[in-house]
Amino acid sequence: MVAWIKCQVGKDMNEHSTLFLVSDRTGITVGSLVRTLLTQFDQAPVQRVVRPFCDDVDKIARVVAEIDLAAEVDGRPPLVCSSLADLDLRARLKRSCGRVFDIFDLFLPALSEVLHQPSIEHVGLAHGITDFKNYDQRVDVVNFALAYDDGTRLRGLDDAELILIGVSRSGKTPTCLYLAMQYKVKAANFPLTEDDFLEGRLPRPLRAHIERLYGLIISPERLHQLREERCPGSTYASLPQCRRELSAAKAIYRAERIPFIDSTNLSIEELAIEIMQQVGMERLW
Amino acid sequence: MVAWIKCQVGKDMNEHSTLFLVSDRTGITVGSLVRTLLTQFDQAPVQRVVRPFCDDVDKIARVVAEIDLAAEVDGRPPLVCSSLADLDLRARLKRSCGRVFDIFDLFLPALSEVLHQPSIEHVGLAHGITDFKNYDQRVDVVNFALAYDDGTRLRGLDDAELILIGVSRSGKTPTCLYLAMQYKVKAANFPLTEDDFLEGRLPRPLRAHIERLYGLIISPERLHQLREERCPGSTYASLPQCRRELSAAKAIYRAERIPFIDSTNLSIEELAIEIMQQVGMERLW
Repeated sequence: MVAWIKCQVGKDMNEHSTLFLVSDRTGITVGSLVRTLLTQFDQAPVQRVVRPFCDDVDKIARVVAEIDLAAEVDGRPPLVCSSLADLDLRARLKRSCGRVFDIFDLFLPALSEVLHQPSIEHVGLAHGITDFKNYDQRVDVVNFALAYDDGTRLRGLDDAELILIGVSRSGKTPTCLYLAMQYKVKAANFPLTEDDFLEGRLPRPLRAHIERLYGLIISPERLHQLREERCPGSTYASLPQCRRELSAAKAIYRAERIPFIDSTNLSIEELAIEIMQQVGMERLW
Repeated sequence: MVAWIKCQVGKDMNEHSTLFLVSDRTGITVGSLVRTLLTQFDQAPVQRVVRPFCDDVDKIARVVAEIDLAAEVDGRPPLVCSSLADLDLRARLKRSCGRVFDIFDLFLPALSEVLHQPSIEHVGLAHGITDFKNYDQRVDVVNFALAYDDGTRLRGLDDAELILIGVSRSGKTPTCLYLAMQYKVKAANFPLTEDDFLEGRLPRPLRAHIERLYGLIISPERLHQLREERCPGSTYASLPQCRRELSAAKAIYRAERIPFIDSTNLSIEELAIEIMQQVGMERLW
């Protein structure tokens, strides 16, 4: 009986409850946190409202009005997850009908105790520009990844910290861009092609950079599926061709002792972080 | 006296304390959270150790050994922020000498109460592949942003949800890539050049897409600095040229009623989120 009631309540929550994400900056942190936490519940509120850059009294007042309206429509208090550094804004948000969880409220007291310091209440810049030089480096690194995408350029490859190699559609480009954008890794990528497989060797331009190479592998079935989307019915996309290229690529990695990873079940984020961890790049912060 | 002691302790903490970030997946969520929280302290631990993918007993045991070693070297317990869905792994981490804060521990009980549901303890996939179709769309959108970078292609521009325009080096490319990578926004970008300014009109290929255009502006001084890095001493980089181009671009935006934003003090994340918010893209989750 109790289980049945719980289930009904859960269902209600799912169908009629609204989740608000409120931040004084981008909301990336609180969004990421809530997404992670909600993976731990079978039923999560489906209606989601994200309100970034709520950094003054007027904007908070507007969000409070939205929360109160949602409470009326839903017939229950919305869940509100927030990241507001200013104490006054936080207090105002709490006057809404929502059940407010603020990440600063929840964490700062404990962190303050461990760090033996009071917390200051200024708007955080976790995802803002704190330093132009740093920012410019980031943009430069993204431009590097673009310039050295898919073996388009050879001169200057010496500057790459990492060179991803693999067959077409194994995930090189998005991984390089992500590494550049998020972790400022100067990453180039280079395709392995039919000619390399015939020779059974690394492409010549890569031989001087062997210690910076990292290989990608993917399952033949998944590669076939990805290539079919691009060139349906082609030899390029056929399963036997995918199998042949992948086993030739793997043979090269093994012969040259190049570390490699299977991208089949990994997201761009997971691939990037696994690779950095495996090559010992202390860039994760 | 009390203030002085606090300050000394704070200083010590900064100099000798280690911060561990431990996750069973990428650690992106807990990293982002801790970065945000530490913006609220003047002194934060400088020594940071990130350990992603700690998803079994052996890996946790290795991290526990590292934490205990750091405690010995530092002469004080490291701060450990973790995101471990498995209760047993969490319990093992807490047996270390570190002061452990786990995001699930801290948030789940309260969230569970509001959601009227017990939490399940399985490894979260906030940054993993939950669905191949979704993942493929993301990669396709990144490829779209690459194909439609800097006005390189006109045919197919109809498919863009958003077209960023602006003078060279105003931030179009990284913003488009970020929008694609993080929010699956099909974003193209198109440069405004001398010819457009002479005509005082939008480039012809853009006129059919006016409702999807969004302009970037930047301060002349910052643009000058960015261009100087690329082409030192050139007319292109000179301050008068930057001023002239920017005021011509702004005149076009105003004449055509194209919304625009000043990118000078905004990070890629902030720019992307501001633009999505202003055009009403409900993609922030």
